[in-house]
Amino acid sequence: MTGRLFVIGTGPGNPAQTTPQALDFIAQGEQFFGYGPYLDRLDLRPDQHCIASDNREELHRAKAALDAATKGHAVCVVSGGDPGVFAMAAAICEAVEHGPPAWRNLDIQIIPGVTAMLAVAARAGAPLGHDFCAISLSDNLKPWPVIEQRLRAVSTAGLVIALYNPISKARPWQLPAAFAILRETLPWTTPVIFGRAVGRPDENFSVVPLSEADQQPADMSTCVIIGTPETRIIERPGRDPLVYSPRSIGV
Amino acid sequence: MTGRLFVIGTGPGNPAQTTPQALDFIAQGEQFFGYGPYLDRLDLRPDQHCIASDNREELHRAKAALDAATKGHAVCVVSGGDPGVFAMAAAICEAVEHGPPAWRNLDIQIIPGVTAMLAVAARAGAPLGHDFCAISLSDNLKPWPVIEQRLRAVSTAGLVIALYNPISKARPWQLPAAFAILRETLPWTTPVIFGRAVGRPDENFSVVPLSEADQQPADMSTCVIIGTPETRIIERPGRDPLVYSPRSIGV
Repeated sequence: MTGRLFVIGTGPGNPAQTTPQALDFIAQGEQFFGYGPYLDRLDLRPDQHCIASDNREELHRAKAALDAATKGHAVCVVSGGDPGVFAMAAAICEAVEHGPPAWRNLDIQIIPGVTAMLAVAARAGAPLGHDFCAISLSDNLKPWPVIEQRLRAVSTAGLVIALYNPISKARPWQLPAAFAILRETLPWTTPVIFGRAVGRPDENFSVVPLSEADQQPADMSTCVIIGTPETRIIERPGRDPLVYSPRSIGV
Repeated sequence: MTGRLFVIGTGPGNPAQTTPQALDFIAQGEQFFGYGPYLDRLDLRPDQHCIASDNREELHRAKAALDAATKGHAVCVVSGGDPGVFAMAAAICEAVEHGPPAWRNLDIQIIPGVTAMLAVAARAGAPLGHDFCAISLSDNLKPWPVIEQRLRAVSTAGLVIALYNPISKARPWQLPAAFAILRETLPWTTPVIFGRAVGRPDENFSVVPLSEADQQPADMSTCVIIGTPETRIIERPGRDPLVYSPRSIGV
């Protein structure tokens, strides 16, 4: 029997933002691999089993999930947001490429989800309204000079920037360093959006100018969106402002 | 009475990828504004009314929707994919900024969805597995030299590129021109993914090297993902290959 492996994105955290497709594949799963807090959000049956692991053990988790699938189980690997955006889908592929031939025979399906930057952007208005990029600020997987060079390239080119994994206890200085680089290429008034757990009861959400971004609290679950010189703030009486990046430039 | 305006993303086309949140807001809507094919996909009640318009009339449509909301209606503006990615959310914000003060009093909510590049990436493997960007190839809203400069900047910086609105009858030469620019900065073997209507019965999906990308059919609904020099293809016996961009680089 050929095992099946589903790599599932459950969306940004609000259960109403998990797709029916994701729930359907979760219902088919027998074994669930993932970061503990993501697994805790699932509403599983008694016959469905969780194998939780730490956030920094992605490749080890991928191999364990593939191994379980080769034994004939229906295995779910669960990511918050979308599994293809700084999450488990790439770790699974990496493990398949370098693993035993049996892993290439598995039925592997990747189920997309609403990634964090889309939920944070929707909360703010339309800050991703023109060309944009997503960059992980973790230098565990790439050298810091590469991140610096990318930040300079995309901000100079006029792209909105969504930062994932902006800061952790082990990486306290990278986010302020990123803001310092961006202050060399962007106006200090550029809007910076911080969103965490958007649409959940413990939501954190704020918009500040780039000059004040260092003072904002953030953690690994925060998505930080930095506008461009074109990004606008629309003040509204008695309501949150709308932040948006106009669709057109220079025409 | 204060009108309400919901800007809703219905996802990439497979109904199982529309979130319950989007369906809930659709159920509350009285009037629906959008591009005809997106409205046609909705399963509306007889008391819910559609006002369809052409794909190129976004700002006109936004104003009409805001106007209807100020009359007290619950208005839905419907986008495929995510409304904040080259879709209606920015057009609504733009109209609010430059429109009458009453539009700033409206209850405006933006409901995120799975955007096309996430669905195409999930179909392929994990091509967005490291830093990536999304660029609209339409030069209706920005000058072509800006697009050229952005393509050079992001491909040189090592980002995966997702192209939206790659080609249309009125813009036949821009996509081949983009590939020509990318052949100056990327290996000609770089994987290029074409995805259209992924997960729907009329799906088109293919992966070709950059050297052969000009020969692939594409239209306005195609999302084109161009890898980086690190992007890998894993061949699998009897199955589609997995295309992925490794999480790590140079460490």
